[in-house]
Amino acid sequence: MTDRPSPTVRDLGEQGLLERLLRFCPAQVVGDDAALVQVPEGRSLVVTEDVLVDGVHFSIGLASPDLHTTSPQDAGWRAAAANLSDLAAMGASPLGITVGLGIPGDLPVAWLEDMYQGMLACLAPSNTPIVGGDICRSPVLTVAIAAFGAVSPQRVIRRSAAQVGDAIVATGVHGASRAGLELLLHPARGAALSESDRQFLIHAHQRPTPRLDAIPSLAALFPDGAPFRVAGMDSSDGLADAALQLCEASQVGAVLARSRIPIPVAFNSWLSSSQAMDWALYGGEDFELVLCLPKAKAEALKTQLPELHVIGEIVAGNNVWLQSDDPTVETELLQRDRSFQHFS
Amino acid sequence: MTDRPSPTVRDLGEQGLLERLLRFCPAQVVGDDAALVQVPEGRSLVVTEDVLVDGVHFSIGLASPDLHTTSPQDAGWRAAAANLSDLAAMGASPLGITVGLGIPGDLPVAWLEDMYQGMLACLAPSNTPIVGGDICRSPVLTVAIAAFGAVSPQRVIRRSAAQVGDAIVATGVHGASRAGLELLLHPARGAALSESDRQFLIHAHQRPTPRLDAIPSLAALFPDGAPFRVAGMDSSDGLADAALQLCEASQVGAVLARSRIPIPVAFNSWLSSSQAMDWALYGGEDFELVLCLPKAKAEALKTQLPELHVIGEIVAGNNVWLQSDDPTVETELLQRDRSFQHFS
Repeated sequence: MTDRPSPTVRDLGEQGLLERLLRFCPAQVVGDDAALVQVPEGRSLVVTEDVLVDGVHFSIGLASPDLHTTSPQDAGWRAAAANLSDLAAMGASPLGITVGLGIPGDLPVAWLEDMYQGMLACLAPSNTPIVGGDICRSPVLTVAIAAFGAVSPQRVIRRSAAQVGDAIVATGVHGASRAGLELLLHPARGAALSESDRQFLIHAHQRPTPRLDAIPSLAALFPDGAPFRVAGMDSSDGLADAALQLCEASQVGAVLARSRIPIPVAFNSWLSSSQAMDWALYGGEDFELVLCLPKAKAEALKTQLPELHVIGEIVAGNNVWLQSDDPTVETELLQRDRSFQHFS
Repeated sequence: MTDRPSPTVRDLGEQGLLERLLRFCPAQVVGDDAALVQVPEGRSLVVTEDVLVDGVHFSIGLASPDLHTTSPQDAGWRAAAANLSDLAAMGASPLGITVGLGIPGDLPVAWLEDMYQGMLACLAPSNTPIVGGDICRSPVLTVAIAAFGAVSPQRVIRRSAAQVGDAIVATGVHGASRAGLELLLHPARGAALSESDRQFLIHAHQRPTPRLDAIPSLAALFPDGAPFRVAGMDSSDGLADAALQLCEASQVGAVLARSRIPIPVAFNSWLSSSQAMDWALYGGEDFELVLCLPKAKAEALKTQLPELHVIGEIVAGNNVWLQSDDPTVETELLQRDRSFQHFS
């Protein structure tokens, strides 16, 4: 919550609120029944939608301000980031988003404006506009974002494109978002962490970066004419879930090297190796890309994306194994039901 | 609610529910991080989003089954219809929708499947696929639909394109949806109505038809080369609201003829003329199109769309007047705050 006095949504009414929120949209695309957007010639449209609910994905803290771990700016940032990450996972460049809001009448308008500021901050590096949306009242704050992008039909990243022999790569460390959440929920934990490590982990949770930067680097690996083949998805539901889903969609198996799972350096002074591995594999919300591509391409990509880690290899079969360098440690079979699930 | 036994959302879990709902989507476009859709060459993308909340736009009736006025099929139909209507209001043809759901764990899965059946029934005439979406748990059932369509940039219907001298037309009767809601909420009312009139009004509320059929008829008025100019929007927030918003966006005024406001015939045996006019102007949710176009074009359009009614004329100024044939009845100034507003 911001400290400045703010009218509530009910005070402003629908028209007043709409006028405030339209300030966050480019004037030329809003103000009609729907938004008009240009898709560059020869590109396909990519569409994704995410729904975020107060108390599940963030907390507006109206009922219990002390408990809230997410500022409105961060809630907005993460909502936008999740959608941009889905576009990146398809190899697409964003064209715009629409924002649908279900809003309790007693929500301060400043909260919403701060959330929009957070969205814009996340959208700014890719010049992605908010082109419209909808508002209606609801007992629970709900944010539904639809994002759309464009991709050359020849350069779509599909989950189903992995082949035996491919390297499996992750564009960055995993587990940091989960650790950041832990530090927000239980500030007394992680006493051994340096202040900069603590801030790094919290930032990873509050302001994850969608990996749109990887898309031009991937395209550059396949110069004009060379057939593009990259399988991939984002790791929003965890690194293990991504590996499992890629293998299922591609009807292949994988062997991941336990020693190569990219864990934040900060974990070394804080967590047991099994706790660190658990958060890295199952923590979720890191919004990195997990990609499968020919080994030589993976090595070439590393020169473009220094944080890239080769974590394993696609093999025949349909199992995903986690293998240790230590021969006395049993190889572990990863399973889907261990991953993050709603409704449980 | 359906009578057949159904597991709840919590029983099935996220994966199980997703598998059920994916049956309603074409296999070739779903199953990745985002959906891939082709936009026909030379067309612009049109995007719109609507959020519907249990207890505001429909009632799932879990808490009080006796009070619910909307079956899951009808809720699905209306959610899809509202979005297709926004596309029609831009002159666009639908390409697909995404469905974002916030779902209480105790909702029977059959309710959701019935809702999807209702959506598909509304989408079928225009061959519009459900191409993806998102599910998450929520204390309140929330349905966020994003719809996207394609329109030739030369044939966009804009709110701001009305000109002095234009005829104002409505594609059908108004007030029927509001009357249908009244009959559902208070079955004892409307005793003078015939059964077919009663069913017509209830159907207008439960299964409004988005007027996509008007788009090719409008296009045909302007053969290739002739500059297309049609202003318009849909009447989802009421006929008066549509006239007011068109005039505001176009910086013009309007005179509507009270005697030409198209009221359902069924109202004659039931309602006072002031009640009938109130519902026709402010009832909302009729999902007709309100268009402004040159008078000769309006007459020509009538031969294509027999239910079309010329209701008034665009004039200079910025006021919207409702004028009676009877010189003893004062001309009424329509105002925006009389229209439907959320949060009030």
